[in-house]
Amino acid sequence: MKVMIDLCVVPVGVGVSVSEYIAECQRILRKAGLKTNLHAYGTNIEGEWDSVFAAVKQCHETIHQMGAPRITTTIKLGTRTDRAQTMEDKITSVEEKL
Amino acid sequence: MKVMIDLCVVPVGVGVSVSEYIAECQRILRKAGLKTNLHAYGTNIEGEWDSVFAAVKQCHETIHQMGAPRITTTIKLGTRTDRAQTMEDKITSVEEKL
Amino acid sequence: MKVMIDLCVVPVGVGVSVSEYIAECQRILRKAGLKTNLHAYGTNIEGEWDSVFAAVKQCHETIHQMGAPRITTTIKLGTRTDRAQTMEDKITSVEEKL
Amino acid sequence: MKVMIDLCVVPVGVGVSVSEYIAECQRILRKAGLKTNLHAYGTNIEGEWDSVFAAVKQCHETIHQMGAPRITTTIKLGTRTDRAQTMEDKITSVEEKL
Repeated sequence: MKVMIDLCVVPVGVGVSVSEYIAECQRILRKAGLKTNLHAYGTNIEGEWDSVFAAVKQCHETIHQMGAPRITTTIKLGTRTDRAQTMEDKITSVEEKL
Repeated sequence: MKVMIDLCVVPVGVGVSVSEYIAECQRILRKAGLKTNLHAYGTNIEGEWDSVFAAVKQCHETIHQMGAPRITTTIKLGTRTDRAQTMEDKITSVEEKL
Repeated sequence: MKVMIDLCVVPVGVGVSVSEYIAECQRILRKAGLKTNLHAYGTNIEGEWDSVFAAVKQCHETIHQMGAPRITTTIKLGTRTDRAQTMEDKITSVEEKL
Repeated sequence: MKVMIDLCVVPVGVGVSVSEYIAECQRILRKAGLKTNLHAYGTNIEGEWDSVFAAVKQCHETIHQMGAPRITTTIKLGTRTDRAQTMEDKITSVEEKL
């Protein structure tokens, strides 16, 4: 099952600057071979369900290993059986109506 | 790794009434032996990471099998390494300060 | 316009324990006369759109005044025009199918 | 108070294709003079709190007028008092660590 998710990981208890943790997640997602797009409030990720969630788990494990005692994450995730749809398809579908 | 999540599954393309799909998710979560608490905008779930996400995947698969062509889900998820904390602990921790 | 929201406010940069901030939000929501239900990963709130979002804004302002330099919040929000529906209605609607 | 949000509006009860509703939201956000960035699972928006949430309310009102009986929306929102930070700043801050 293909899934598209939007991942926003927030390490808590390490101060206000969290970009080094987010950068580490980007490396994990790329090593996993997942298609990603970083935006200002999260990262779009596209792939097979199991690969995507294995990478999300690895992000949590790694951020804890880097020293963050607590993590709160928000995920939006979409699946559909009616047709295949990429991240670009979704954006194009809106933009061609503007 | 223990995780606490808040799960909100929204079947799309099946009309405005979605409670039968949500009820089916409740059954899946309970069969999986997970601790849950249904509220008005989602379900709190507590358990081991792999068991929790296996159940979430099963919810998506089942809702598609029930006929929903598209699902959009929102998940908040928290992990912590500094101490164990249950769903009741979190609520008590706030309420004792009121 | 009536709205039902699920509010999860996370102060960042104040350590791992955030319950005193959440308790202050509860006080703000109650003073605003809003119907609320605290759960383990947020608070369900029901009311008029403007009242609800004025209270959310006040939560952010107050938590900053309490010393948190950064706040990240997740809100789910639902509106419907087909019929009135309370927080209890939503829960009952699922539970009667179990 | 400046705010950065990530907005994901999901009309329910109008079938699986919702891009015309999302396009209308884009028009509302642009008319409101807000800085926006559309991605595959939502839209980043930057602006003054009151302007941003007035536009979000207008999105809900307009989508209902277009015929959607129910809307479920997910918003992530961030405020900070320690320093100003744009959407580009957040992305650059991560990318320069990669």
